[in-house]
Amino acid sequence: MIDLRSDTVTKPTEAMRKAMYDAEVGDDVYGEDYTVRKLEEIAAEMLGKEDALFVTSGTQGNQIAVLTHCQPGNEILLEADSHIFYYEGAAISAFAGVQPRTISGNRGQMSAKDVAASIRVDDIHMPETSLICLENTHNRAGGAVVPIENMKDIYSVAQNHHIPLHLDGARLFNASVASNTKLSEYGAQTDTIQVCLSKGLGAPIGSVIAGSAPFIKDARKWRKRLGGGLRQVGVIAAPGIVALTQMVDRLEEDHKRAKRLAEGLREIPNITVENEVDTNIIVVNISKTNISVDDFLHRLKEQEVLAVPFGSETVRFTTNYHITDENIEQVLQKLNACLK
Amino acid sequence: MIDLRSDTVTKPTEAMRKAMYDAEVGDDVYGEDYTVRKLEEIAAEMLGKEDALFVTSGTQGNQIAVLTHCQPGNEILLEADSHIFYYEGAAISAFAGVQPRTISGNRGQMSAKDVAASIRVDDIHMPETSLICLENTHNRAGGAVVPIENMKDIYSVAQNHHIPLHLDGARLFNASVASNTKLSEYGAQTDTIQVCLSKGLGAPIGSVIAGSAPFIKDARKWRKRLGGGLRQVGVIAAPGIVALTQMVDRLEEDHKRAKRLAEGLREIPNITVENEVDTNIIVVNISKTNISVDDFLHRLKEQEVLAVPFGSETVRFTTNYHITDENIEQVLQKLNACLK
Amino acid sequence: MIDLRSDTVTKPTEAMRKAMYDAEVGDDVYGEDYTVRKLEEIAAEMLGKEDALFVTSGTQGNQIAVLTHCQPGNEILLEADSHIFYYEGAAISAFAGVQPRTISGNRGQMSAKDVAASIRVDDIHMPETSLICLENTHNRAGGAVVPIENMKDIYSVAQNHHIPLHLDGARLFNASVASNTKLSEYGAQTDTIQVCLSKGLGAPIGSVIAGSAPFIKDARKWRKRLGGGLRQVGVIAAPGIVALTQMVDRLEEDHKRAKRLAEGLREIPNITVENEVDTNIIVVNISKTNISVDDFLHRLKEQEVLAVPFGSETVRFTTNYHITDENIEQVLQKLNACLK
Amino acid sequence: MIDLRSDTVTKPTEAMRKAMYDAEVGDDVYGEDYTVRKLEEIAAEMLGKEDALFVTSGTQGNQIAVLTHCQPGNEILLEADSHIFYYEGAAISAFAGVQPRTISGNRGQMSAKDVAASIRVDDIHMPETSLICLENTHNRAGGAVVPIENMKDIYSVAQNHHIPLHLDGARLFNASVASNTKLSEYGAQTDTIQVCLSKGLGAPIGSVIAGSAPFIKDARKWRKRLGGGLRQVGVIAAPGIVALTQMVDRLEEDHKRAKRLAEGLREIPNITVENEVDTNIIVVNISKTNISVDDFLHRLKEQEVLAVPFGSETVRFTTNYHITDENIEQVLQKLNACLK
Repeated sequence: MIDLRSDTVTKPTEAMRKAMYDAEVGDDVYGEDYTVRKLEEIAAEMLGKEDALFVTSGTQGNQIAVLTHCQPGNEILLEADSHIFYYEGAAISAFAGVQPRTISGNRGQMSAKDVAASIRVDDIHMPETSLICLENTHNRAGGAVVPIENMKDIYSVAQNHHIPLHLDGARLFNASVASNTKLSEYGAQTDTIQVCLSKGLGAPIGSVIAGSAPFIKDARKWRKRLGGGLRQVGVIAAPGIVALTQMVDRLEEDHKRAKRLAEGLREIPNITVENEVDTNIIVVNISKTNISVDDFLHRLKEQEVLAVPFGSETVRFTTNYHITDENIEQVLQKLNACLK
Repeated sequence: MIDLRSDTVTKPTEAMRKAMYDAEVGDDVYGEDYTVRKLEEIAAEMLGKEDALFVTSGTQGNQIAVLTHCQPGNEILLEADSHIFYYEGAAISAFAGVQPRTISGNRGQMSAKDVAASIRVDDIHMPETSLICLENTHNRAGGAVVPIENMKDIYSVAQNHHIPLHLDGARLFNASVASNTKLSEYGAQTDTIQVCLSKGLGAPIGSVIAGSAPFIKDARKWRKRLGGGLRQVGVIAAPGIVALTQMVDRLEEDHKRAKRLAEGLREIPNITVENEVDTNIIVVNISKTNISVDDFLHRLKEQEVLAVPFGSETVRFTTNYHITDENIEQVLQKLNACLK
Repeated sequence: MIDLRSDTVTKPTEAMRKAMYDAEVGDDVYGEDYTVRKLEEIAAEMLGKEDALFVTSGTQGNQIAVLTHCQPGNEILLEADSHIFYYEGAAISAFAGVQPRTISGNRGQMSAKDVAASIRVDDIHMPETSLICLENTHNRAGGAVVPIENMKDIYSVAQNHHIPLHLDGARLFNASVASNTKLSEYGAQTDTIQVCLSKGLGAPIGSVIAGSAPFIKDARKWRKRLGGGLRQVGVIAAPGIVALTQMVDRLEEDHKRAKRLAEGLREIPNITVENEVDTNIIVVNISKTNISVDDFLHRLKEQEVLAVPFGSETVRFTTNYHITDENIEQVLQKLNACLK
Repeated sequence: MIDLRSDTVTKPTEAMRKAMYDAEVGDDVYGEDYTVRKLEEIAAEMLGKEDALFVTSGTQGNQIAVLTHCQPGNEILLEADSHIFYYEGAAISAFAGVQPRTISGNRGQMSAKDVAASIRVDDIHMPETSLICLENTHNRAGGAVVPIENMKDIYSVAQNHHIPLHLDGARLFNASVASNTKLSEYGAQTDTIQVCLSKGLGAPIGSVIAGSAPFIKDARKWRKRLGGGLRQVGVIAAPGIVALTQMVDRLEEDHKRAKRLAEGLREIPNITVENEVDTNIIVVNISKTNISVDDFLHRLKEQEVLAVPFGSETVRFTTNYHITDENIEQVLQKLNACLK
């Protein structure tokens, strides 16, 4: 199988498996797991933040950020197709009791003007705007890189209104590599950040949230309530360290292969690549093929290629650690076969 | 003062005061207040529903509907400028734990197609769409009447997906009078409805929610939790009965006066009436006057006319029971004076 | 019918009806209802607090206090049979997301030592203790007066731990009259208080919460979210003013009649008065009669006497404004008749 | 260091490390991690349940059970010192919006009569009782085994009232071994169960919840909202399988050592063993030593022995995989040294 469904399917590398085997561990609820502390220090340093906290998933990191920044009855601003709004089961409202106010972006970018216009005034009828969330790269915008300039503009609005800004950086490493922007430059335009160790970096489990020391202290308690306070967590922090220190640069290869795949796809009749391919995600509209998304994916699967539905007329391909140059060419051949 | 800020400023009529004075009352927590039961029966009958429940405000009625229809982690669909989303302090998320997904409407109308496209599929990442909310007339769309045809289209989508539909009918009486549509015709296109006894109808306090008997049974308990279970509530139900039985037809006068006011406003230079005036609300853009909204309202107040801000460049005028034909002409004169 | 079910069944007096009829009103959401402001000022003054807020019920007042004082994930301390825990539909957990930790009291009094021992230490596994609630008089303890000394002891613990204290004073007027303690003396031992205008004082609807000005400002917004922000609320504030200014002293009569009723009940075989009758509530154990509670209440009703169940073996009688000396003697006679 | 703070400090065995290294993995969000499915099947089989779900901690498993069984405004019954009430940061109220009603137990056992008496009747003032939670072994009762007979009595009450029963079996393996009761016998007295793979069984991370297939389906979605939906989770499921299949029987050794330690402690003057030692936990009252808990633990630490505070006069010792017979004798010697 050539699995292009997501970069989340990446299996741990030999170095990661070895790191797990050898991991120095302790009980992290007592603050004694050496390996997870090391991971958190490395992440905080890379992101330019005072402290960091290991969490079991990107969703958990985002939820903790919202719980820590907000009170029930608050409103948060975020892009209409952002992961926090679209893919986290309304957990921000179920757990933190906050109301999302969505802003439609362009390739994942909200305009700073729209953000400013959506901040509530002081009025007894209105919620208080208490958080702005960004996502970079933006998944549903096809892995689009949100430019640092856009982030600066929005962070400036946030700071003028004394509203914290959280970045869902599940694929921030892809943004960093694609735009040649240091992680700490992104960090400087946010109050808090979540980054994933799995996905393109290949760790089997885990994310990190970073921010000020007081934020991390409060976040740690919310993590406990969510059931994310673990024991000998070093066994999964260890491959996370491998991910952070050895796997970032290789994302460039995923991006190259995604661009090559998009190039090939553009030559196939009746198929339209919908997104400009900044990183490792390609969104393809297949409506002109007169094949349904389900049928299309089924035909691909028979050819041993996996992708995912991404709407009623679109499918998503995502390059990842296991995909080779050769695989890309195979996929293009098989796609042609499918459509005949 | 000529108070055009809202129809909520309406003071009770002599008939209402007398009804309060004479009201037959009992302890409604024991179900023994004759007057409130009578009000609820009248309202249920008018709206074509099995049962109804008195609540202390439109917000309380809407919140009870959401609490009764939904579970935490659900998503509800509603217009981006609807009262429930815009003006209820994010209470739907704070109390019911639901996430709003907003759809931009045209004069308060969402398209049935947009509604259908926003209903979530069954997916572990996604909330379940559990309620669709409409608002008629639509306040922020300038008191626009949502046509019964649009409601039918959306209710059809709702029923196909087995999703309940709630109507915020705070000003449904205005819609009914303006479009010559019976309340029960609207009722037939909804599962549950909230209507206000105050506003144009002039009762000092209160709203009613209507729906099936099991819905009202559950709603009653949520009302108790919100602190809306009252005792000798007949004293405010009595003017509510006056409102329902004697005050509906006169809304036509409010609408005529609003149209006359809009007509006059259109003749004043640098002032733009933004909405088509269906009912009793006029939204005016004053940006060309080069006067700020605050300053504009201040000048009006000096002329003994009151209106409210409705955005950074707009103000809202609302006709109501206390406004006479003469007042309308006075307001136009005073406005001219203000702008000189 | 001689209705001893509760003091909540009290119907408004002629003075109250007249006050409603004459009430000067305005739109309280704009802060323009003169009568409700006057009521709030009178209440704040009586309770020795900076500001006060009209709410539609005791439950609403208590819920607002919890919402305003607490954050989700906090714990509050309260007596195991207190109204907030026992009779408010778990709304403190549903809406404010707080966990109650109950302490068994003696005649409604928690010991200050138990309160102190129940305050949580700073630990990642534990909620933060964020509120202590008292109730005076204590309903389920049979209208028992909680002595001011007990309140002082507990408030001292609260202050030492920087934890706010809220008093559910739904029947604080009864406590005040029975123990000859000024309301402001109670007020001095609390941060916030809720008192009911209905019940013994006979207003048809409403309660008041009192506290610091910043507390009331925040409370006002939570009241709006709960749907308790009303319009021409003066029509129910007016009888509330009558209640506060003309109806407090007469509670002594209710207490005398309750004591006379208890005296008579003690002479009836197989019936045990369970509580020391401090105020207007009598709790009677009927297990020795071998009649079920339902049957007992049914027999009483046939004799035109109403009371309420209060557990599997007990019933509650409550004297109120409508009960005369003669009624008490009649009830005793009828009870004897029932049990023969 | 001889670490008797908890069994949570246990480090993974060589077999576990090897299992991690070799684990066959996949993306569990797509249901493709072979190893976690195998773990879940083994756990379901052992507990006599239809299906099971891996979760990252006991707290997460308990929270998911409450979220899945309950609605906001419900009440749940549980022992006053139970982990869910005492040690989970009020998360049941913060996230699920439920109110706990606690019952004081004897050695961790609630009486079935008390449970029955605490179930609410149908009344508009009252929450609905929607869940009963047990804990076995009971941590704060000193690792006491709750007898299967007590569980049967309570489950019978639960079933008569159609209320589900959840068992917090974080240390159910200890109960099983100590009382020679099969896990499936416990399973038969519950609707849902949570068991920990860490603690005495030594896995580095993780718990399992088990129940009916529909329960597990709903639980899976709540796990996703909490951020517990992981990717290549086989790397931690693999040591969990080792825990379940190779580490249960050895708990008997922990219990023997705990009994030997208790025996020795009883001979030390001024020290009282507070609990009957059923399993691996010993609770010791040190008040007669006139040494504070903090000081006592500090002195122990200087002797290279670790224990935890368990109240203002008590400390807890817990035997675990790393503690040898020799360690027990050393601890007793060191304790004598400390107290001189």
